[in-house]
Amino acid sequence: MFKSVGIVARYDKKTALKLAGELAEYLKSKGLKVYVEDTLKGKIATQEEMVPLANMKADFIITIGGDGTILRTCITVPKPEPPILAINMGVRGFLTEVEPKNACEAVDKCLRGEYKIEKCAKLCVSLGDEDMPDALNDVVISAGEPSKILYTQICKDDKPILKVQADGLIVATQTGSTGYSLSAGGPVLDGEVNAFVLTPICSLTVFHSLVFPADSTLSFNVIRPKNMLVLIDGHYRKLVSLKEPMLQVTRSKNATSFIRFEENFYHRLKSRLLFKGTE
Amino acid sequence: MFKSVGIVARYDKKTALKLAGELAEYLKSKGLKVYVEDTLKGKIATQEEMVPLANMKADFIITIGGDGTILRTCITVPKPEPPILAINMGVRGFLTEVEPKNACEAVDKCLRGEYKIEKCAKLCVSLGDEDMPDALNDVVISAGEPSKILYTQICKDDKPILKVQADGLIVATQTGSTGYSLSAGGPVLDGEVNAFVLTPICSLTVFHSLVFPADSTLSFNVIRPKNMLVLIDGHYRKLVSLKEPMLQVTRSKNATSFIRFEENFYHRLKSRLLFKGTE
Amino acid sequence: MFKSVGIVARYDKKTALKLAGELAEYLKSKGLKVYVEDTLKGKIATQEEMVPLANMKADFIITIGGDGTILRTCITVPKPEPPILAINMGVRGFLTEVEPKNACEAVDKCLRGEYKIEKCAKLCVSLGDEDMPDALNDVVISAGEPSKILYTQICKDDKPILKVQADGLIVATQTGSTGYSLSAGGPVLDGEVNAFVLTPICSLTVFHSLVFPADSTLSFNVIRPKNMLVLIDGHYRKLVSLKEPMLQVTRSKNATSFIRFEENFYHRLKSRLLFKGTE
Amino acid sequence: MFKSVGIVARYDKKTALKLAGELAEYLKSKGLKVYVEDTLKGKIATQEEMVPLANMKADFIITIGGDGTILRTCITVPKPEPPILAINMGVRGFLTEVEPKNACEAVDKCLRGEYKIEKCAKLCVSLGDEDMPDALNDVVISAGEPSKILYTQICKDDKPILKVQADGLIVATQTGSTGYSLSAGGPVLDGEVNAFVLTPICSLTVFHSLVFPADSTLSFNVIRPKNMLVLIDGHYRKLVSLKEPMLQVTRSKNATSFIRFEENFYHRLKSRLLFKGTE
Repeated sequence: MFKSVGIVARYDKKTALKLAGELAEYLKSKGLKVYVEDTLKGKIATQEEMVPLANMKADFIITIGGDGTILRTCITVPKPEPPILAINMGVRGFLTEVEPKNACEAVDKCLRGEYKIEKCAKLCVSLGDEDMPDALNDVVISAGEPSKILYTQICKDDKPILKVQADGLIVATQTGSTGYSLSAGGPVLDGEVNAFVLTPICSLTVFHSLVFPADSTLSFNVIRPKNMLVLIDGHYRKLVSLKEPMLQVTRSKNATSFIRFEENFYHRLKSRLLFKGTE
Repeated sequence: MFKSVGIVARYDKKTALKLAGELAEYLKSKGLKVYVEDTLKGKIATQEEMVPLANMKADFIITIGGDGTILRTCITVPKPEPPILAINMGVRGFLTEVEPKNACEAVDKCLRGEYKIEKCAKLCVSLGDEDMPDALNDVVISAGEPSKILYTQICKDDKPILKVQADGLIVATQTGSTGYSLSAGGPVLDGEVNAFVLTPICSLTVFHSLVFPADSTLSFNVIRPKNMLVLIDGHYRKLVSLKEPMLQVTRSKNATSFIRFEENFYHRLKSRLLFKGTE
Repeated sequence: MFKSVGIVARYDKKTALKLAGELAEYLKSKGLKVYVEDTLKGKIATQEEMVPLANMKADFIITIGGDGTILRTCITVPKPEPPILAINMGVRGFLTEVEPKNACEAVDKCLRGEYKIEKCAKLCVSLGDEDMPDALNDVVISAGEPSKILYTQICKDDKPILKVQADGLIVATQTGSTGYSLSAGGPVLDGEVNAFVLTPICSLTVFHSLVFPADSTLSFNVIRPKNMLVLIDGHYRKLVSLKEPMLQVTRSKNATSFIRFEENFYHRLKSRLLFKGTE
Repeated sequence: MFKSVGIVARYDKKTALKLAGELAEYLKSKGLKVYVEDTLKGKIATQEEMVPLANMKADFIITIGGDGTILRTCITVPKPEPPILAINMGVRGFLTEVEPKNACEAVDKCLRGEYKIEKCAKLCVSLGDEDMPDALNDVVISAGEPSKILYTQICKDDKPILKVQADGLIVATQTGSTGYSLSAGGPVLDGEVNAFVLTPICSLTVFHSLVFPADSTLSFNVIRPKNMLVLIDGHYRKLVSLKEPMLQVTRSKNATSFIRFEENFYHRLKSRLLFKGTE
């Protein structure tokens, strides 16, 4: 049973801030200990405790925003990640489920235990001994210098399999397969398939998406230029030079859990495929 | 240890027939019982026993031809399938490994046990109680009338997931993912990933390839037109009407085994991607 | 000024038949000579003259149906083609403009001269001396035997440019570039660009769409198999054997004219791109 | 008849420098006035006049390098551009024709007048009154901040036609259609078609390549983020803010002329399609 809750919201959108304040009151009135992300300090009227996302230990977290808000939360909250109830207040809300007007109803269901947990696999990214955050959606590598082509050797389980010249490469989870990888022409991975997908961005050489077993390890050895940029879930960014160890990507031991009320992967997929932008 | 061998060859190509005759002699001289597919009767000079492919019970089978010859063999030989040593004498030989000039050397390695077995998963296709052959490469469904669009409901494990309008749909194994599915824009599945892929052919609706876990069951319910054509591995063909039960596709209990001398999936993939035709 | 009108409608849809009857009455009351396509004989209550489409000489034609009804009309009516007012009563109505509820209003605007003519270029298809109908959308060639790959030599202005192995090839006009060619991955041609596009269907060899100047002549010489199937606008069908002269495609002298009330190419394109089927 | 020649070469490749020195001698011995690009000063042994590329007024120019060397030359030389004889010493040499071993033979043919001129259309890029260089290959626009999606309104001849969300947009000439636009999934434009092509890079919204008549003007109005980056032929780079006038692209009055010995567009295309990188 949930005794504490964290609230994370977009701080650049008034409606998100207003809903964050209302939910904080509502959850407190239900007897929960409420933590609010401290970036909202001074922006919402609440007496609840303000904590940085990196210290937010709660039984579950409510995100109010789009996919960006969720990805930022996953990267930063202490592990193991508490489950996320995602309320859609973003331009792109493919990972979210609840519309703002149904927020209180969704909270009630949560507290009554009337929900399912959708576990989403993540990718573990490493560079020698160095720690990087896990990816819920994708790891993107590209040339460290703008408008350069990345020329890289790809290994699977330490065996060289292909060399590729492309703007970049995306390694995406099942969840991420409906995101950037899809825009780059990749396939959709059903949520139950135990795999991840490598999709090139504007490949110069003939090359399609490749689907690998989740327990394999991909490594990337840059041949040209001298640096490559690693971008995790669109938020974490690191420049890696040729002299460093190979970048490795494999399945993480961690997962992100979403609180869901219906099985709606294919419903969400349809809305993604027909996404019209804001027009 | 191999005591008997079956020989299957293209009967429309002289060099294939010649090699079939030579190998029959060579294998006999090595003490093996040799069976030759009876479609070669009168076309090659041999005293070995001629049997129909459907009765060819041998410890292993040598195919002399391209991918078509292998697919025809897999569909027809008695189960469980003996392993296949595939000698390339076809236009497309993405599944083959041995070049004709190395045929005797390959046979010697086989007999000395110096090989690996590559197990390739197959798809089980069913229509109510009806038996259809397993697919090593793919099952393709299309409208039963020429140049009609197929409008079909797709279910995963009996739950409706998508409706699609397209020229057709391909369900491909890992092996088949480098074949027709690739030409239709699908991803390549690494040989070790436990999955199959659904790829649309010229989809009218927005729709990409979908990758499913190998133990899921896809079913297809045609909405329009009145019939659909099912094509397995480009060889087995069946017209299915609206009134029949739903067509179901899932992983087969059977697999096809290839005799391989190197791990060369990615080598074969590169030759596939850069395939220039016969020019 | 329009003095006579032809009415063509889907005969398999009650609402289309009803509207055809209503429009016939309405147009007669406005003083026009009305011709009704004779396939509607006995299906609609009208005393207007019934004529076969091939003899329908009218100042303009109203089609009630989808793209199929328009394409069938273009192929069959006597040349030069009268302009078409296209009322949408089909599954796919990318070429149509008027919704059924606005049919009478559209007719009024027509009669008052408050419209623009959109001229759509067509393709001329020939085989030696033989006449084939012009294509408003596309010419599709494929192997004459089902599930065979077509291997063909392509010439531009009698010079060989490429050999291709594919399920088929589409030559599409600007109008047709938003149809089958788009489903096969081709680009959209702006209505004002003086060009046509060649798009392969599931090409085995690496090959993209090619855009040619409208005054060039493409010819196709089949290498394998023995026959190829030519399909014009999804309606006209002809089997061509290896021994016949090369199939040639170039711009036609004829064009199809549509009666339009707004410039709406990009509006129609958006609805095409987001087409969801009938779900 | 050619009386003067300019020599431009990659200065990071010894073989290119060596050939540059040899050709300078050879051309001088044939009586031509020779100008050498001054970036080669001190790198090649020659007494010929060193001039900056921007001042190189010669009857024709020899480039020794790959496509990058050609594009850099086109952007910088005084207008009208002298014809270019392109010798291939680059990783990618899709625009080049002559192999290094045939350089002297090619020069001889040039001097005897035994060549054809291939005229390649260019794009004119403007921003209010501001001058930017013409593009031989392409103009690429992307978000001014890394890994942001560009959300832009596209107008054709001042009429809004589409809004697009994508990593970027490529406007490519016929020549450029075989370059970056092709990697992004665009069609190939035959050299004689009077058109250019707009291709999205990883579009979030459903969107394909669009082909426009060469005399139309495309304009781009960024909606998000605040800046966009304009990149011409991979060399010229400019950051444009929301407050500036719309970026406009149309056909240039200038063209680039290549000295060619054979008509080989489709030959070069085949090598492009099957480009294997450096492996």
